[in-house]
Amino acid sequence: MSNQDPLVVFTPSGKRGRFPVGTPVLTAARQLGVDLDSVCGGRGICSKCQITPGYGEFSKHGVTARDGALSDWNALEARYDEKRGLKQGRRLGCQAKVQGDIVIDVPPESQVHRQVVRKAASARVIEMDPATRLYYIVVDEPDMHTPTGDLERVARALKDQWEIDKITCEFPVLTQLQTTLRKGKWAITVALHKTSATATPSIIAAWPGLHEKGLYGLAIDLGSTTVAAHLTNLDTGEVVASSGIMNPQIRFGEDLMSRVSYAMMNPGGDHEMTRAVRDAINTLAEEIAKEAGIETNLILETVFVCNPVMHHLLLGIDPVELGQAPFALATSDHLNLTARDLDLTTLPASAQIYLLPCIAGHVGADAAAVALSEQPGKSDDLVLIVDVGTNAEILLGNTSRVLACSSPTGPAFEGAQISSGQRAAPGAIEAIRIDPVTREPRFRVIGCDKWSDEDGFWDETAASGITGICGSGIIEAVAELRIAGLLDPSGLIGSAAQTGTDRCFAEGRTNAYLIHDATAEGGPRITVTQGDIRAIQLAKSALYAGARLLMDEMGVDVVDRVVLAGAFGAHISAKHAMVLGMIPDVPLDKVSSAGNAAGTGARIALCNLAARAEIERTVRQITKVETAIEPRFQEHFVAANAIPHATDPFPELGKVVTLPVVGFNTQGDGSDGGRVRRRKRG
Amino acid sequence: MSNQDPLVVFTPSGKRGRFPVGTPVLTAARQLGVDLDSVCGGRGICSKCQITPGYGEFSKHGVTARDGALSDWNALEARYDEKRGLKQGRRLGCQAKVQGDIVIDVPPESQVHRQVVRKAASARVIEMDPATRLYYIVVDEPDMHTPTGDLERVARALKDQWEIDKITCEFPVLTQLQTTLRKGKWAITVALHKTSATATPSIIAAWPGLHEKGLYGLAIDLGSTTVAAHLTNLDTGEVVASSGIMNPQIRFGEDLMSRVSYAMMNPGGDHEMTRAVRDAINTLAEEIAKEAGIETNLILETVFVCNPVMHHLLLGIDPVELGQAPFALATSDHLNLTARDLDLTTLPASAQIYLLPCIAGHVGADAAAVALSEQPGKSDDLVLIVDVGTNAEILLGNTSRVLACSSPTGPAFEGAQISSGQRAAPGAIEAIRIDPVTREPRFRVIGCDKWSDEDGFWDETAASGITGICGSGIIEAVAELRIAGLLDPSGLIGSAAQTGTDRCFAEGRTNAYLIHDATAEGGPRITVTQGDIRAIQLAKSALYAGARLLMDEMGVDVVDRVVLAGAFGAHISAKHAMVLGMIPDVPLDKVSSAGNAAGTGARIALCNLAARAEIERTVRQITKVETAIEPRFQEHFVAANAIPHATDPFPELGKVVTLPVVGFNTQGDGSDGGRVRRRKRG
Repeated sequence: MSNQDPLVVFTPSGKRGRFPVGTPVLTAARQLGVDLDSVCGGRGICSKCQITPGYGEFSKHGVTARDGALSDWNALEARYDEKRGLKQGRRLGCQAKVQGDIVIDVPPESQVHRQVVRKAASARVIEMDPATRLYYIVVDEPDMHTPTGDLERVARALKDQWEIDKITCEFPVLTQLQTTLRKGKWAITVALHKTSATATPSIIAAWPGLHEKGLYGLAIDLGSTTVAAHLTNLDTGEVVASSGIMNPQIRFGEDLMSRVSYAMMNPGGDHEMTRAVRDAINTLAEEIAKEAGIETNLILETVFVCNPVMHHLLLGIDPVELGQAPFALATSDHLNLTARDLDLTTLPASAQIYLLPCIAGHVGADAAAVALSEQPGKSDDLVLIVDVGTNAEILLGNTSRVLACSSPTGPAFEGAQISSGQRAAPGAIEAIRIDPVTREPRFRVIGCDKWSDEDGFWDETAASGITGICGSGIIEAVAELRIAGLLDPSGLIGSAAQTGTDRCFAEGRTNAYLIHDATAEGGPRITVTQGDIRAIQLAKSALYAGARLLMDEMGVDVVDRVVLAGAFGAHISAKHAMVLGMIPDVPLDKVSSAGNAAGTGARIALCNLAARAEIERTVRQITKVETAIEPRFQEHFVAANAIPHATDPFPELGKVVTLPVVGFNTQGDGSDGGRVRRRKRG
Repeated sequence: MSNQDPLVVFTPSGKRGRFPVGTPVLTAARQLGVDLDSVCGGRGICSKCQITPGYGEFSKHGVTARDGALSDWNALEARYDEKRGLKQGRRLGCQAKVQGDIVIDVPPESQVHRQVVRKAASARVIEMDPATRLYYIVVDEPDMHTPTGDLERVARALKDQWEIDKITCEFPVLTQLQTTLRKGKWAITVALHKTSATATPSIIAAWPGLHEKGLYGLAIDLGSTTVAAHLTNLDTGEVVASSGIMNPQIRFGEDLMSRVSYAMMNPGGDHEMTRAVRDAINTLAEEIAKEAGIETNLILETVFVCNPVMHHLLLGIDPVELGQAPFALATSDHLNLTARDLDLTTLPASAQIYLLPCIAGHVGADAAAVALSEQPGKSDDLVLIVDVGTNAEILLGNTSRVLACSSPTGPAFEGAQISSGQRAAPGAIEAIRIDPVTREPRFRVIGCDKWSDEDGFWDETAASGITGICGSGIIEAVAELRIAGLLDPSGLIGSAAQTGTDRCFAEGRTNAYLIHDATAEGGPRITVTQGDIRAIQLAKSALYAGARLLMDEMGVDVVDRVVLAGAFGAHISAKHAMVLGMIPDVPLDKVSSAGNAAGTGARIALCNLAARAEIERTVRQITKVETAIEPRFQEHFVAANAIPHATDPFPELGKVVTLPVVGFNTQGDGSDGGRVRRRKRG
């Protein structure tokens, strides 16, 4: 290129260079390293390389682009426009040739590495850098005089047409390659997968001609209770369908340890659980593809995040070692497998599976995914990230250091083992307020935006009824009982006499609080029992003790901010969580929700190969703290039993909520309880 | 090491060096790169590193080794000797420590790269360089405070104890790793497999403690008619069992092209044939392991050699492209697969499969194996190698160039499509002589060393009877008929009148020759019919025409020597083959048999990783000649129809055999045949 050659400036990258007249825009972009997509390799058929030329004077770039700075619209562009429609002002980068100085804008959808904005609350974007990409190639026909195999000629085409030096081919694809080549009349599209930026790419799928149906991936958050999947277009990053099902392993045990016990007590029990979860994933994949209207054979990648027990059971590894100290994982590294390895028969046999690394025997790939999504190691302030589920994963860190642990909260936070508990579904109470004066409750149920004391609530909920309390509802209920003075710091519900309301009623030797009696409508009596309070206390104590243990290890008494992760975290009210003493005291506006951060981490790993390398590196730098063997955990646990806490001050909470000082213990001190006085805590 | 340090000289390598007093012999050997085996890594338990110290004066090495030049016999050596017995004069290299100047002999069985002499006629030895090796390691126990996975600690042990930097693990092994480690109390033996010298090794098996049951591999010659397997000890190279079975695909078609047709005509027919051959291999593996008294889970490698159609059907690739020009292979490169890929369920799922590369669509991995075994590219003189089977693979070459083709001989050479033909089994005539004067035959049958005119022959063959003619028998019979003047150069058998013997009798409009009438004993009438002669003529013409085509391509009229390969080649008499005109004229002592060269090539590839790299490189340099599209092939074929040949002189044959000039054609020239005169040909 000489100084007389036309100047081409690409936006938004700003990359620029001079190219001889007649150079296709795609060629210029490639030479400059501009991120301009192409599947067909410049043959004018895939339309991935669309660009928008800019004409006129661009003083910012020092360029004046005149009419005729690009070659005229050609036959291929006309044909594409006729068949599919080309947006106004767009050209095909491989057909439009440079004739004079020009500014070329690469729209986001023509960039391979475009950014995808997450729908979730947090503003983090996912940059597309997929492990699997499509390449259209024209393959030499076989020739008896130079008798190479079809695969070897495919490899040569990739080298000649895409400068891809060396490839391998998944065996199931190889067995069908000849048919595909002949169907495509020697033009095919191959999907090349790389397990890392430097790995040899492998052909994991091939289609006759130009493949235009897209490529998809599943990001699966394999939880003890639910299996959630996001079907993602690997080209655009768009989530085209989301679906969740119950983990069928529940029939073998509600929580992780009961499943490990099942495997220990029943020979072959681990295999049963493995089969159950794989069957479920097969079903889930089929359903989600159907929902999105795609064929399952387009799902070429799946990323799993899960806790260590789910991880081992998915892989077909007996989880027995995870049930006892020292909680040894079979492997802690990330894994690259195929659908065939895991009997995921709904997916193509050569579909690629990626499992994020585990952090430790109790801190799994789900915690790694949270770390990938929330990046505590890149936070300037000290952030505590809590992923609330049947087990809580807790991360604490900043740019200097990241710590992690897992804490056995049990399923109470998910509404399980709660007398009126139920899953989050229409009819479930998800929010509740108790008037501190009248001690009367008002509430909101899933499926209706109104509060129960608003006009129209009862009409709108007539269909679903009021059926129970979900996880966020029970947390609010316990916290509101405490705020209203119906529950003392030790977790005792007062009697009707002690509290002055009939909503508190005796149930055996303890008291309960009636939220709503739906028996007239054929529904249940929805109450909060003393047993429910105990279950929540155990769960929140475990969570808080885990967080405290990490804070001890870090040598701090306060954290700067708290991130609540987990599908459930999205629905927890920060104030109520803190009244309960689930999380350490921070200003309320420093508590945020990250939504399903583990699921987001899975999506990031699905869409971005570099992110996989990053988390593989990061987990090695995370310090693991083992709650099960740490004596201080027990101390923290006991101290955290009180609501909000026996000893830790909650000064920030005290600024917004005044908790009544009450005590309903009639055994020890003979106090008859009742509200004594309100005071600011801290 | 200093000049005062003791001098250690290893034999037979001659490697020498000075080492500080107290250095274990194994350590010294490793530092010098002496080939001394060890599985346990110097722990004194595997006994692989046995050496024989030499004491006294070794003027050749300039060393005087005094008593005490090695440390005293220690407790581990004593224990090993007591339990297993150590040969007189032997020491364990890892236990014996250098104390003074010493000469150390490394016996062959302690060398990894020892040479294994083949039983077969050819003297070529196989050097051991197995792709899979055993490593005994002691693995750190898991520790909650540094929670790495078990696999990661296995990797660390291999690095610390064997300097193996990076490994992967086959997924089926990973799922069982925790159990193995705990059974072995953290000491295990892993089998590490490398697909090439530079590839990352992969754990393909693991056993608790020191694995002492050995490692085995199968070398399988997968032919159209038979499947032959050699079970080989991958440590010693010893063939511990050999076994063969019929290829069950025969029920879908006798020869390759009829199987391809079956696949073309019957939807799913290729899958049926794939299943049939895989089932057969499973059975074969089971039987051969039983015969050798080992468990099939010790068979960790299998090498296949086969023609392209068998290759594709084994892999589950529709062979239809191989049935029509341009005979495109799905892949011509070598393949590394696992037993699981091929549904070889008798073998461990992670057992490694290696397929040699194919040379072309008609010249398969079996021809590549012959090239590996017979090394035409390293021959100074021009060698023609003929692998006779249902298809003949032909190689011609020397150090300057190697050519290859395949020729469709059909199954006549194997006794199929011959009226009295049968497989090589007791009772089959394998050799025959016809007296040129009396025209009476005498013969030998398989299972008896005597000729039929020797005393005791009939007694000894009474049990088997005389049941038919096998492949080598039919070749001899046709050649002997020609030598005795009962068959003319065009391939016509004379009548009783023309030949003066009643053994020639009319059968329809042609004549046949009676070898033996066993009807009295309830056996068959064994004859050579005119149809048999035609079948042999077609087969031998194809073979000869293929050889000539290669000679044309090479620009020569004669070759220096001929190697007959194939199980059948071992039994062909060179003289009779040349009378028949199967092979070009060379001095008879320049015709040798290589036995089952393809099978030998498979064994070499099984035992030697470098040999795999060599043949992968070599096949790319072989010039393929396609017989099916070459017009000259047809010309050569027609000219080769005569016995021995219509136009080519056979001067070397003429030096040892005088063929009578006869003609029994009564149609065209009215000649009534009979012996006219004997003359020397050429």
